[in-house]
Amino acid sequence: MSLPALQSAPFTWPVRVYWEDTDAGGIVFYANYLKFFERARTEWLRALGIEQQRLREQTGGLFVVTHTQLQYHRPARLDDLLLVTAQVVDAGRASMTIEQRALLKPQQGDTGGDAQPMLLCSGTIRIGWVDDRNLRPQRIPSTVIAALKLPA
Amino acid sequence: MSLPALQSAPFTWPVRVYWEDTDAGGIVFYANYLKFFERARTEWLRALGIEQQRLREQTGGLFVVTHTQLQYHRPARLDDLLLVTAQVVDAGRASMTIEQRALLKPQQGDTGGDAQPMLLCSGTIRIGWVDDRNLRPQRIPSTVIAALKLPA
Amino acid sequence: MSLPALQSAPFTWPVRVYWEDTDAGGIVFYANYLKFFERARTEWLRALGIEQQRLREQTGGLFVVTHTQLQYHRPARLDDLLLVTAQVVDAGRASMTIEQRALLKPQQGDTGGDAQPMLLCSGTIRIGWVDDRNLRPQRIPSTVIAALKLPA
Amino acid sequence: MSLPALQSAPFTWPVRVYWEDTDAGGIVFYANYLKFFERARTEWLRALGIEQQRLREQTGGLFVVTHTQLQYHRPARLDDLLLVTAQVVDAGRASMTIEQRALLKPQQGDTGGDAQPMLLCSGTIRIGWVDDRNLRPQRIPSTVIAALKLPA
Repeated sequence: MSLPALQSAPFTWPVRVYWEDTDAGGIVFYANYLKFFERARTEWLRALGIEQQRLREQTGGLFVVTHTQLQYHRPARLDDLLLVTAQVVDAGRASMTIEQRALLKPQQGDTGGDAQPMLLCSGTIRIGWVDDRNLRPQRIPSTVIAALKLPA
Repeated sequence: MSLPALQSAPFTWPVRVYWEDTDAGGIVFYANYLKFFERARTEWLRALGIEQQRLREQTGGLFVVTHTQLQYHRPARLDDLLLVTAQVVDAGRASMTIEQRALLKPQQGDTGGDAQPMLLCSGTIRIGWVDDRNLRPQRIPSTVIAALKLPA
Repeated sequence: MSLPALQSAPFTWPVRVYWEDTDAGGIVFYANYLKFFERARTEWLRALGIEQQRLREQTGGLFVVTHTQLQYHRPARLDDLLLVTAQVVDAGRASMTIEQRALLKPQQGDTGGDAQPMLLCSGTIRIGWVDDRNLRPQRIPSTVIAALKLPA
Repeated sequence: MSLPALQSAPFTWPVRVYWEDTDAGGIVFYANYLKFFERARTEWLRALGIEQQRLREQTGGLFVVTHTQLQYHRPARLDDLLLVTAQVVDAGRASMTIEQRALLKPQQGDTGGDAQPMLLCSGTIRIGWVDDRNLRPQRIPSTVIAALKLPA
């Protein structure tokens, strides 16, 4: 089921680029955008009242990533400040798909204040809810469904 | 241009799972498959006589990843031995697409020796050749084209 | 030269524990404290007006880590919020030593509000200033000396 | 108890430097030597017949790192081949200290074949055996003591 109308503006989380994130090309190592995207998903859930560690203790389940698709538009560099978004675009009983973007936040002084964030990386992440003993798919807990305002 | 007939068997590189690769779910952290895939691509190029650092010094260019798409089938765990494949499936003047897989190597003693490797993760990685000063697309160097036996 | 009296309270930076930071032991992978410590050093420098990328472009130099020593007291887990400190304890012409700690921030509701942060990891990091072309030691730039209020 | 005479030559494991290991300084990110050292420790144990995942399932315990101390002598770069050593230098009932080094393997053609490996990074890692339910110190299992030929 598609969810175009459920959310207006995507959740946004700031991520600073440190030495650990870069590679010898002088830019952010591409695999690290998956980390940035997950930080944003985690903070998006936290903002909705969901702590994954506690949820696991309460339900015996956890989210696992089942599919990722990323497109790299422009590189980020050391000290850059990124804005990372997360927005549900599709949800089922046991999984959901989140659309995510990493944008470069314009620095103060860039072109008079009307500079727009520049798209660096975009993609979709599909996550599924599983039993943490055997990693088999389970229905997403109702507390999560309710917090995300997904249809039951 | 598609290249189905250019390569018969894919290049394969072994990757052992260490503590650094796992997460608190007890399995390999999904972003790390991008690292495993890159190790296999690097060793595939090395097997064809291409060292990326030397190539950069000689040509002023390097490969950057422009698109990744990964599907996670089954989890890997600490001490598992993976077989990671790399095979060109599409190539243009400035970029190419590599199909990759991570398979679990059966342990000695598993079901009498006829155990098949199990698919854990599969995907495609698109890489483009760029000028290392401005990261703008360039034609892939002819030495690389020749080594990979791609059509000029 | 020791600098016990130069700084009263250490700089402190919050670090949240994400999936990427954990390992199959269910705790933060020990090598990642070096990343947490560096984030705190980077933000400490930024708070003093020093951006490392800009400084490199202006001076042709950068800090490299020459020695690390870490002691692990208690583990951190997914979703924990750490407070990471940084404080110069020794400085010379070409290098300095920073004392750092990672503390677990008490959660709201822990023992009535008077809970103290718990020490998880402590250590010292020695960094040296080098020419970025050959990585040979150089005198730390005077702008950095001034910003850190180190003796010239 | 010191063990200077117990082992003659240290265990050695090759580690290739990939893009994932480097940073924007163009060299191996210093924290990654902790990963390289652990790979060597893991393979050293495996060479002695000890698989950590199986050992955990059998004993309910695991090794955790309690102290690290590293000194960085010279940088490594993309495509470098390192030789990483591991050697027990001290052992007690619940912990042991391993001395480790990363050396740069000379390339073929370097100075006529008599080139010596160059020391890049050296250090000591202290590991303790703990119960995996509460991470409390335990006596190292006798099978490990026997495999490592440590005094009981």
